[in-house]
Formats: sequence, structure tokens, C-alpha cells
Amino acid sequence: MNAIVAHGGGPTSVINASLAGLVETCREQASFTALYGARFGVRGLLDEQWIELLGQDPQLMERIARSPGSVLGSSRQKLSEDDYGRILQVFARKSIRCFFYTGGNGSMNTALQIAHFSKKSGYDLQIIGIPKTIDNDLRVTDHTPGYASTAHFFAVAARDVGEDNRSLPSPICVLEVLGRNAGWIVAATALARKRDDDAPHLIYFPEKPVSLERIAADVDAVYRRLGRAVVAVCEGQLDETGATFGADVDRAGSSVHRLASNLGHTLARLLSEKLGVRARAEKPGLFGRCCGPLSTQLDREEAWECGSAAARAAAQGHSAVMVAIRRECSVPYRSSTFLVPLEDVARIERRLPQDWISSEANDVTQSFLDYVSPLIPDVESYARL
Amino acid sequence: MNAIVAHGGGPTSVINASLAGLVETCREQASFTALYGARFGVRGLLDEQWIELLGQDPQLMERIARSPGSVLGSSRQKLSEDDYGRILQVFARKSIRCFFYTGGNGSMNTALQIAHFSKKSGYDLQIIGIPKTIDNDLRVTDHTPGYASTAHFFAVAARDVGEDNRSLPSPICVLEVLGRNAGWIVAATALARKRDDDAPHLIYFPEKPVSLERIAADVDAVYRRLGRAVVAVCEGQLDETGATFGADVDRAGSSVHRLASNLGHTLARLLSEKLGVRARAEKPGLFGRCCGPLSTQLDREEAWECGSAAARAAAQGHSAVMVAIRRECSVPYRSSTFLVPLEDVARIERRLPQDWISSEANDVTQSFLDYVSPLIPDVESYARL
Repeated sequence: MNAIVAHGGGPTSVINASLAGLVETCREQASFTALYGARFGVRGLLDEQWIELLGQDPQLMERIARSPGSVLGSSRQKLSEDDYGRILQVFARKSIRCFFYTGGNGSMNTALQIAHFSKKSGYDLQIIGIPKTIDNDLRVTDHTPGYASTAHFFAVAARDVGEDNRSLPSPICVLEVLGRNAGWIVAATALARKRDDDAPHLIYFPEKPVSLERIAADVDAVYRRLGRAVVAVCEGQLDETGATFGADVDRAGSSVHRLASNLGHTLARLLSEKLGVRARAEKPGLFGRCCGPLSTQLDREEAWECGSAAARAAAQGHSAVMVAIRRECSVPYRSSTFLVPLEDVARIERRLPQDWISSEANDVTQSFLDYVSPLIPDVESYARL
Repeated sequence: MNAIVAHGGGPTSVINASLAGLVETCREQASFTALYGARFGVRGLLDEQWIELLGQDPQLMERIARSPGSVLGSSRQKLSEDDYGRILQVFARKSIRCFFYTGGNGSMNTALQIAHFSKKSGYDLQIIGIPKTIDNDLRVTDHTPGYASTAHFFAVAARDVGEDNRSLPSPICVLEVLGRNAGWIVAATALARKRDDDAPHLIYFPEKPVSLERIAADVDAVYRRLGRAVVAVCEGQLDETGATFGADVDRAGSSVHRLASNLGHTLARLLSEKLGVRARAEKPGLFGRCCGPLSTQLDREEAWECGSAAARAAAQGHSAVMVAIRRECSVPYRSSTFLVPLEDVARIERRLPQDWISSEANDVTQSFLDYVSPLIPDVESYARL
């Protein structure tokens, strides 16, 4: 059969590894006559901007597996009912009988809608989802490919910015971390800590709106103890009124997703005014989802496995399912893949469990550390006098 | 004799390597009875917050040589005439006859003033400067320890953010790079390019003020050609009126150095309004001067050598000099150290030579690439379909 793969949503450091795993395993399965890659996600599906992938040089695919960003291109375009129909027309014309869609819960919902539509239309189409999101907010799967690399990046950033912060009497540093609605990434900055006074000293979560007064009081307490404070906060953190501290933040759902947030910068200014001490913000931004040198081997391997499992699932006749990761064992870490119905993951955002956030809502609990540690390489601490 | 070392200005990824080189070489020289490290720069000199360094475990010093940030702590405090007198009083009380000061042109000026003051006072004091600044704006020396690691970080950031930018139809990305008055770091982002369409597509320089209209026209031209554009710009870029595009930027010389700049964010917003396309800014910020994993081996080795050369210079009786790096050969790269009078480097900012900036003032020339390439590990390009 002819198959096609598309990417949805923001790229990660390892989405290309999932693509490579899919291509390599499709090659080994007799079922596939062609595997096309759609350029720029659903836009490419509709425009028939396709690249044949089974004929690509296997060595090139190995190198692509180690490249961040999406070599196919991705898209945040939302589809209408009309679009579903048009996609099926294109698929029928090109005898596409299998559609692989790599993305997060929004993309899995798109996949589900296409599955419903093809069933209704009587068009025989297998649909397999491949999980991908730095946000780690997909349900059922233990974690998502892309998360560990970005979490590692920000844990390293928290450690290194923490060393910088120790070096100068410039007391307050706000580290703005990727993640708008779920605190999985900001939570992982806790891995930067080995010693009592290591950064980050405070971590806030989009799951827990918090007033400026409360943050300022927390920062003040750390400042009195250590003479400095590193605060890790998400780009989507909310205050007690549901606002973003006066920062210019585009919410994920907004139709115009035009500018980066300046929440960290705004928060640093407010804290500086309130506490009368110097504060500045650091916001590594999207570098955190594409930094090749800080991506992790395990993340890349699991991403590859998810792509590979998708190919096998299709060859076995499955449809309307997503590949998910099961943690077989934490120490030593071992995982496998399994299939989950698209209904169970589509559209639903998995937020950080309440009991993985400390009662003061400014730190993680040991349960979170037990969850995340096996996924991220040890963030070694530096020597000090 | 008893000696003391202090750090001035912002830390780097390799200032601790200079410290380790100094300590290890002082140990080997019979002249030194003690080497103290002042906590937090000149503040620690005055407050007598000192740590004895010759007695530190050599293995610990080796690990410290690989740690970013300043283990001693640094300071941006400006000294008054009274402070010079007080420092000499403290030195006399503790029989300090040699002062090592690690920093940039501001710190070298402080060292020079202390040299003048001690001469006037008839206090016998050797003063040796050790170069350090990510900004690479010290005169005479081929380059400064700390520059290469930060330049490498931002070249990697330009490459990886460029891959991310290719992956989504989100056309304009402004990459804000460290550096307020000199364009050495932003210029090095050119090392991210291997192919015609690689990021960064435009590079601007604080040496060349440029109007928003001009930047917008340049961006528009790239956008028409490639459908996207990555623009590298310094946190200190000026428009044609000498202003910072309405951004909130603290100049290096300002007494209150309180907040990070948001120039990239402001510029992205202005470009988005002007061109009617989506734009966002990425600003990795101070992570660029402290990121351990992206610091470079050569930078660390040269930093160590500069510290070591300072110890030898002091043992040989030199004073009022700074250690500088001479490039012996570019291919294969080889360097050595020499001594330069503090007068020749104090206070003067070395900016990027005019003929290393393209005539359109939006790119570097080959001469700059010839200069910088041997200092930075190859920024390998990623595979693409």
C-alpha cells in the first residue's frame, strides 16, 4: 500500500528520529509500496507537496535522525470539515491507504477526525499517530519523544545560569522556560540541584496560578537566606486573576501566534521594583527545543522506536491508534511501545499531577523526581572552592 | 611574596581556567608564599574576604578549570580614589606584593590606577592583568579568553534556531545575541552557515547604527527569496538616531544595570507590524556566557595559559602589564602569550574593524571569517532531505 507521513505542531530535537524509524521500518515491511512525506504538515497534504521517502539513502536517514527541527516541515494550521474531504480526495487519487501523523494532542485530534471522516465516507484508510511534543502533555503514554531533550536543556540552563548568578552580586534571576499550559519542562529544572543552595531556588507551575505578592515574598525569603535567587517560571505562568503579570503572551490556542512572550522580563521588572534589588530575566526560548548538542540519546532512541512501532502497527492492520511509551522499569530504565486508541489521547492536555507539585506550589515533590530522573542524563554539578 | 587575585566584570565559561592556571603555576614558582583569592572582585579586596589558594587540592583546581562562572565571584563595582588608598592599606597589612586582576578593559584600567597609586605612595606592588571578556573588545591581544566559547554558543544557536525556523511557516526570527558595544559575538554567528540558505541571513553590528526601515527592507528581501529570515542582532544595536528601537536596554556604562534588554522582542514586534508577517525573538541571554557543554577546549586551554603566564610574569618581576595572546599561525592554529603595558589596553574598547563588516552593514566579510574560524570548533550542518 501507499502511505504518507506528516508532522504537526512545533518541531523538537528528535522528531526527525521518529521519521527515520518510520522510514527504515517501512522499508523492511513488505506491505509498503511507497511512503510519502508531506511538506509542512497538513498544508502539504492538501497541496500535494510530497517527497518519496523509501527511496532515500539509508545513510542520509541516519544523519537526519540526529538532526533537530523537522526535515519535512510542520504546521499549526487548523483543518475544516471541507479540508477533511479534500484530503481524502487527494489520498484516493494517489491510492494512499495509510496516514502516519506525528504530533501532540491537537494533531491526534486531527488524526481522529480524519479517521471518523474516512469511515463515514467509506474510504479505507489506516491512521497511526506517532507521539511528539516537548510539552509532555499527551495522556496515557509515560512521556513523549522530544520532552527529555528539552527538559535536559533547561536543567542544564538552570544549573549554568545558577553558576553565573553566584558569580556576581546581581541577586534575582528569572529563568523563563518553554511551556504554556503544563509545567513538565519547568519542573525538570529541579534536576539542576545537587546542593542545598543550587539553582533553581523556586519553581512555579502553570497548573498553579500565583500572585506577584506571593512570588515576591518567596523570592525575598530566598534572597535573605542566600543573597540571591534563581526563579524558574513557564512562559505561560498565570497570576491569581488568570492574567500573565502584564506580559505580552500569546496563548497556545490563539489564532494569531505571532510573538514570543516576555513574561520573564516583565516579572523581573516587577520583582525588581517590589524588592528594590536588581533582577534580570533569561529566556533561552526556542533554542530549548532545537539545541542539537543538548538533545539526549535516550530521547532520540525512543523517538526512533515510536516511528518504527508505527510502521509495524500499520503493517499489522491497526488503525485509529497512537504509539505510546510504556515504562517497563525505572532503575535500570527500560521502555517499550504499545498502542492506544486515538480517542484516549486526542485533544486532552495532561497537566502535571497535583501531588508532584509541593504544597507551597513553588517546587516539585520527590515523586516527580523519581519519574523524571531516569529520562534525563545526570546534570553534573560543577566544582567550587 | 604574598599575592592576591581578583575577578572583575561579568564571568565567562573559562575564567576559572585562568584561575587554575595561575594557581598551578604559582605553586611551581618559589617566589610565592601565599596566593589569596578575593571574593566578589574589588569588593572582596576591600572587605578582606579572601581564600588561600595555594593550599587547595590540585584535583579540585582541575575540576574548577572546567566549571563556568567565577568560583571566586566577581563585581562591577567602580572604585574611588579613597578605595585605592584603602586597598593599599589592606595589602600592606597582609604584605601583599603582587596583585593579579582578571578582567576586560575596565578592569585593566582599575589595575592601572592601582599601579599609579602604589607608585605615588611608594608601596612596592607588582600588578599583572589577565585578559577575560566574552566581548573580545580588548586591544593588542589577538582575542580574549571567554570569547570563543560564547561565540561558539551563539553560532550553534544560530544554526539550531535556523533549523527550527525552517520547520514551520513562521517567517521571521530575530536572534538577540550578547554584546552591547562591539559586534564580535554577533559576527561569529556567520559560522553557522554552510549552505546558501542557512541562517543567519542577516547580521547587524553595534558599530553600524541602522534604521528600522533598512532592517525591514533587508528582511523583506530575504523573506521574498526564502520565505523566512533569521536576523542576528546584538542586545546593544542602535538605530540611526542612536536609540535602541524603543527597547528597554541598560547600557554597559549605566550605574543601574538592572534588567535585561528586550531589544530582540521589540524589534520582532516592529518587523511584524511593518511587514505584516509573524515574527518572534529568541534571546538565549547570559546562558551564552556560562553554558558549560558549549564552552570550547581551546578557549579553556588558552585561558589556563594566560593565568599561567601571569604567574611567570610576576615571578620574573614584571608589573603594570597584561598577558596577551599572540596568534603564531592560523592553520594549523598555534598561539603563545606575551606581555603588554596596561596603558595600551586600559579603558579602550576594541570594536570590530570596519573592513570586517560588509559594505551593506548586514554581514561579515571573508577577513573576519579567516580571523574567527580557527578559534571556534566547526559548527557542522545538519542533514536535510
